[in-house]
Amino acid sequence: MRTGVWLVGARGSVATTSIVGGLALRAGLAGPTGCVTELPQLRGPALPAFADLVFGGHDLATTPLCKRAEALADAGVIPWRLVAALRDELGVVEQELRPAPVGDTQADRAEAVVRDLTSFRERHELDRVVVVNVSATEPAPRPHPAHADPAALRAALDGPDEVLPVSSLYAYAAVLASCPYVDFTPSTGLRLPALAALAEEARLPYAGHDGKTGETLVKSVLAPMFAMRNLAVGSWSGVNLLGGGDGATLADPAANAAKVQSKQRVLGETLGYVPQGGTRIEYVEELGDFKTAWDLITFSGFLGTGMRMEFTWHGCDSALAAPLVLDLARLTAAAHAAGQVGPLADLGFFFKDPLGAPTHSLGEQWARLTAFARHLHDGGDGDHDNVG
Amino acid sequence: MRTGVWLVGARGSVATTSIVGGLALRAGLAGPTGCVTELPQLRGPALPAFADLVFGGHDLATTPLCKRAEALADAGVIPWRLVAALRDELGVVEQELRPAPVGDTQADRAEAVVRDLTSFRERHELDRVVVVNVSATEPAPRPHPAHADPAALRAALDGPDEVLPVSSLYAYAAVLASCPYVDFTPSTGLRLPALAALAEEARLPYAGHDGKTGETLVKSVLAPMFAMRNLAVGSWSGVNLLGGGDGATLADPAANAAKVQSKQRVLGETLGYVPQGGTRIEYVEELGDFKTAWDLITFSGFLGTGMRMEFTWHGCDSALAAPLVLDLARLTAAAHAAGQVGPLADLGFFFKDPLGAPTHSLGEQWARLTAFARHLHDGGDGDHDNVG
Amino acid sequence: MRTGVWLVGARGSVATTSIVGGLALRAGLAGPTGCVTELPQLRGPALPAFADLVFGGHDLATTPLCKRAEALADAGVIPWRLVAALRDELGVVEQELRPAPVGDTQADRAEAVVRDLTSFRERHELDRVVVVNVSATEPAPRPHPAHADPAALRAALDGPDEVLPVSSLYAYAAVLASCPYVDFTPSTGLRLPALAALAEEARLPYAGHDGKTGETLVKSVLAPMFAMRNLAVGSWSGVNLLGGGDGATLADPAANAAKVQSKQRVLGETLGYVPQGGTRIEYVEELGDFKTAWDLITFSGFLGTGMRMEFTWHGCDSALAAPLVLDLARLTAAAHAAGQVGPLADLGFFFKDPLGAPTHSLGEQWARLTAFARHLHDGGDGDHDNVG
Amino acid sequence: MRTGVWLVGARGSVATTSIVGGLALRAGLAGPTGCVTELPQLRGPALPAFADLVFGGHDLATTPLCKRAEALADAGVIPWRLVAALRDELGVVEQELRPAPVGDTQADRAEAVVRDLTSFRERHELDRVVVVNVSATEPAPRPHPAHADPAALRAALDGPDEVLPVSSLYAYAAVLASCPYVDFTPSTGLRLPALAALAEEARLPYAGHDGKTGETLVKSVLAPMFAMRNLAVGSWSGVNLLGGGDGATLADPAANAAKVQSKQRVLGETLGYVPQGGTRIEYVEELGDFKTAWDLITFSGFLGTGMRMEFTWHGCDSALAAPLVLDLARLTAAAHAAGQVGPLADLGFFFKDPLGAPTHSLGEQWARLTAFARHLHDGGDGDHDNVG
Repeated sequence: MRTGVWLVGARGSVATTSIVGGLALRAGLAGPTGCVTELPQLRGPALPAFADLVFGGHDLATTPLCKRAEALADAGVIPWRLVAALRDELGVVEQELRPAPVGDTQADRAEAVVRDLTSFRERHELDRVVVVNVSATEPAPRPHPAHADPAALRAALDGPDEVLPVSSLYAYAAVLASCPYVDFTPSTGLRLPALAALAEEARLPYAGHDGKTGETLVKSVLAPMFAMRNLAVGSWSGVNLLGGGDGATLADPAANAAKVQSKQRVLGETLGYVPQGGTRIEYVEELGDFKTAWDLITFSGFLGTGMRMEFTWHGCDSALAAPLVLDLARLTAAAHAAGQVGPLADLGFFFKDPLGAPTHSLGEQWARLTAFARHLHDGGDGDHDNVG
Repeated sequence: MRTGVWLVGARGSVATTSIVGGLALRAGLAGPTGCVTELPQLRGPALPAFADLVFGGHDLATTPLCKRAEALADAGVIPWRLVAALRDELGVVEQELRPAPVGDTQADRAEAVVRDLTSFRERHELDRVVVVNVSATEPAPRPHPAHADPAALRAALDGPDEVLPVSSLYAYAAVLASCPYVDFTPSTGLRLPALAALAEEARLPYAGHDGKTGETLVKSVLAPMFAMRNLAVGSWSGVNLLGGGDGATLADPAANAAKVQSKQRVLGETLGYVPQGGTRIEYVEELGDFKTAWDLITFSGFLGTGMRMEFTWHGCDSALAAPLVLDLARLTAAAHAAGQVGPLADLGFFFKDPLGAPTHSLGEQWARLTAFARHLHDGGDGDHDNVG
Repeated sequence: MRTGVWLVGARGSVATTSIVGGLALRAGLAGPTGCVTELPQLRGPALPAFADLVFGGHDLATTPLCKRAEALADAGVIPWRLVAALRDELGVVEQELRPAPVGDTQADRAEAVVRDLTSFRERHELDRVVVVNVSATEPAPRPHPAHADPAALRAALDGPDEVLPVSSLYAYAAVLASCPYVDFTPSTGLRLPALAALAEEARLPYAGHDGKTGETLVKSVLAPMFAMRNLAVGSWSGVNLLGGGDGATLADPAANAAKVQSKQRVLGETLGYVPQGGTRIEYVEELGDFKTAWDLITFSGFLGTGMRMEFTWHGCDSALAAPLVLDLARLTAAAHAAGQVGPLADLGFFFKDPLGAPTHSLGEQWARLTAFARHLHDGGDGDHDNVG
Repeated sequence: MRTGVWLVGARGSVATTSIVGGLALRAGLAGPTGCVTELPQLRGPALPAFADLVFGGHDLATTPLCKRAEALADAGVIPWRLVAALRDELGVVEQELRPAPVGDTQADRAEAVVRDLTSFRERHELDRVVVVNVSATEPAPRPHPAHADPAALRAALDGPDEVLPVSSLYAYAAVLASCPYVDFTPSTGLRLPALAALAEEARLPYAGHDGKTGETLVKSVLAPMFAMRNLAVGSWSGVNLLGGGDGATLADPAANAAKVQSKQRVLGETLGYVPQGGTRIEYVEELGDFKTAWDLITFSGFLGTGMRMEFTWHGCDSALAAPLVLDLARLTAAAHAAGQVGPLADLGFFFKDPLGAPTHSLGEQWARLTAFARHLHDGGDGDHDNVG
């Protein structure tokens, strides 16, 4: 099952790490640490092999992929030996990267993306192409009436307005090109009624959104712990210090707000009440591709005794996100092959703000994910109950 | 369903907090924070009400219960207003506390305990008495051939030797008196083949062992998180600083070893491999009834990128343990009423080193616990599959 | 040497703790933990004894002092036994507390304050009264031309405008009443050219500003450590989570900005460069009178090796500030008695943003402070070199 | 002033980093981050320039220096670009490294070392050679009567016994060869009465011992902070997790004990009392050349209010120690040139357990160090008061 992985933001840190890792796995130069789909509970015949993945993508930037990989090696994200060993393979992927589409209207630009996707699929004789958005986080978009309705949307895109945020324009193009779609960022992507309706019409599955890679991952096991023990969380305050491209983007207050909201949701929904405190994101260039999060949780136990917990998470977002990008491409491809349509709520395990998912608890998300994988491997088709 | 809760170590911090809390709940002076059995997923008709719990117990010490409660209030474990409001009720419980049993042989002393238990049950017209061991941690006992066989054990107890460690002598007496038994400590308790066989004969359920209240609780959600994400944990090192009675006991190297072993088990069994590092317990009197644990976890992600997490847990063991003692008394009583026999593997949620339990993951333990409770509330009898 | 301690904000947490502590020390009910002036290097005959301190003050609020002390005991800041033992003495101090002054103009209100101060001094036959501002942090004031010149200021105060922020109006009144003045907050207080000139004219010493009690105290020893070791600090980021009255005030962005600026100054001036990162103050009501600060410092050593340090400070600001308030009252009284005039740069040890002080390093500030105390005890007069 | 730096343990991590760094500084390829002697307060004409340092040494191991440097680059301690640029220079130093000395008696082996030192000094026309012990920590040695007296020592060394621990044999040889000596480890080195007497006779200065590079460095500023603020430290507990060669050595309980004792001394001597708690050293191979220390400090303030502080230090010992090795070589050479004799108490700034030093406070040590350097630069001779 030859599968294309089309990365929107293909020269970014997450995408570059995904590509280097995918190539290294194919060449047997690295193991699948961090790849959930290689765990015994998920592995199986329905998923495309790493060797069957073919990479391509769009990016505004033009730095050669090899340079990006070298920069990541310098920053300690990727081992130098892999960059050295995979120069030729990276050069091959470089040929599949496209600049941002041009055109007078958003409809024109969407058409250009569709042509890129179609050509990629045909040239490589791919069974399907999964489009994955790993580009920089956008500010929350301005509402537009055309967001609600497919016909109105099509009409509006022919006009002069920037009707859709960029992430959604790519999602729209993915749907037009019959590609399943994954949103790994907090941007809008496919989350507009008009786009969801179009994906449904096109019988496409999609997943999202906002990859759960650090502080929120930890929250999604600690918050259920407090809930299962009936301990009363009084406050939960966090700060995220991060450098790197994403940090600079998130220094923009509008993008920050989108991300922070996504991060706190897990608490209210898991605990059943919202503790005091909030989450901050601060840009500290010095931290490079690594991120340090610190959280303080105060809680009370029996008869009101006050207690507290702190944690510090020092992680590399790219190294945590990249294997999940490969996992999501494999799982979404398999869901598409099995005829599944609409939001893949069973993939909530991967996301801070899971589409249509009823739970933020990592344990419960894991139970759903493993059931989903078993269903696929058993030849499961669209009948699997995918509703939250 | 009137239920006795007989506490071995009845004047210790955990027992005193359990008693004050149980009385406060009965009087409507406190809410059930920390009581798992009051969560919607567990609550139901099969459990005895808090108002139906009657407290008694044994202790070597003779400090009046009221004094112990005052000391805990001074230490910030219990609110002063509860101690003041419950003086009379504590005086009533005081009447039900017995000194350590006397007798020439261990058999004599076991008989004395049986008489105490039987008299307690009869005087209060209780449907059953659950014996809960919350006494100080013992060193690992010396092996004895009589541990393996009921008949040999009975014979040996009539002789001059200290055949059983004290915790096991109480467990033996509980079985003789037809009382279900819970071991909340890492001591031997009922975990000897001869005692297990006797409990089986007497058609009694039992649960244990070693209440999971702090660092290990956190481990039991974090270790599955790393496992579910296929992240490779390279080292997991921890230190526990604690004052209070338990701390002084654990300063004894033999007891320390028992506890530490119990604390590390969760890692190997959850991750499938044992990371480097160990856990230390240090006694720091100054910390009083509170405990501070610090853990450092180093792990690697995709392509080997090194990352790390730290957490500090600052908890009050008594305030965390006491509501679980009430939960265990209620659940074990209900299991007994339903005719269940043998180790209650479904109660693994509560323990560091769960009897017969196949998993250390808190999420999976929770799933089993809630299924168990549903079964009880549905009128479940002994047919429920209780095997790991 | 009978000395009045007049607290602006006399019913606040810091003031109440200072009063309870001062009375407890006088009565021999508590030791001088946290009182710097009781260390061997500072103790001596020039300082008024604790028994010679008489308390009074102003406050907008009207909650009785005893109630405030009870609330602090409930919050764990003050032991209940002291509140119980000192009820009568607190009642006596209550008689010396005055509401905010009234009057049509700021000049009128200043006169009212002067009358309160003078009456207090005369009724108690005090040698002098030290005015200490411990009221809530103000936002940065609007500039006014009269701030620069005593004559202009006097004229403007007779008009209808709010020429001075409240903290400065009290400082002005203190000067008019010939009282030495200490500013323990980041508010403006005496830091206006017109007021400094008036204090000089009146031959008064004064000290400030912004008591160094928590995160900044730690910074003032850690930053010199990095500097003395020639380690390059790349980033220093901090977050302060605090409840209590001060927290709520600081949630106001304008006050927050003033405080944060004061907190970061120590880094630039000690290191010789400003590392990346900033300090945040967040209000978390749940934390009550305690404050948790977390700082992350990244630094590089020889040949650029990256390293890091984190610290968490969990302190009670009132318990840290109150003994320093007593210290400052004693030292400023002694400086006044010795004829010292103008800003007391040798008291920089106590402040986040020390007046006229050349160093933020706690070690160097300590050297100056101990020299200053020796000079006073040796009968030092105004000749001591008080310049930075 | 051409100065030899003779490293005992010359192929270890600290020595290799010192050599690479010294060569890099000479070649202008790196700046002096971490070198205290390049700070404005210490820099000056009395110190040999980096370009005047010539490296040599002994080691039991035989791994080529270049391989060791490569391993350190792999571990993130040294930048690869420096190893690549300095291959030739490292080859030159390689020629100056000698294996462990051989001989039938300890006297023979000492003579062999003396020959190596003398030959090194003569071949390179060095003004002097400073011997610096940076070899692995030894267990505490067995006492021997000959340790007390030079004549008895000389006699005993001719016999068959291992009279001196290895570190002291090198110190003895250094003295015989008229070389000033620095002990950077907790081993015995020159700290035996017989050796001190011989150094005095030979008119040699020496310094030690146990470089202060991590947790203890932080303690030496935090403990004075608590002392200066008259805060009562109730407990101070620490754990050091470390990999690398030193970690494995310290896993040996005897060596561990020596190091731990050295680490805790700062508390008792700075605070004037010994708080509860201790320090642990644990070997965690996974941590490689980096070390993580965590400390918990509980303290009380005014009226007994309980507070706490935690810190985590994540440092690379080699990167912290190596520049100090260069500093010590320069300062000790200058002291020798100025005719100073005996223990250099003014160098206490560099050590966990400073020889003859009256203070463990980093601030006070800094004041002494800068005065010492000024004295040297002013042409200071042996008259400088070097007593604690």
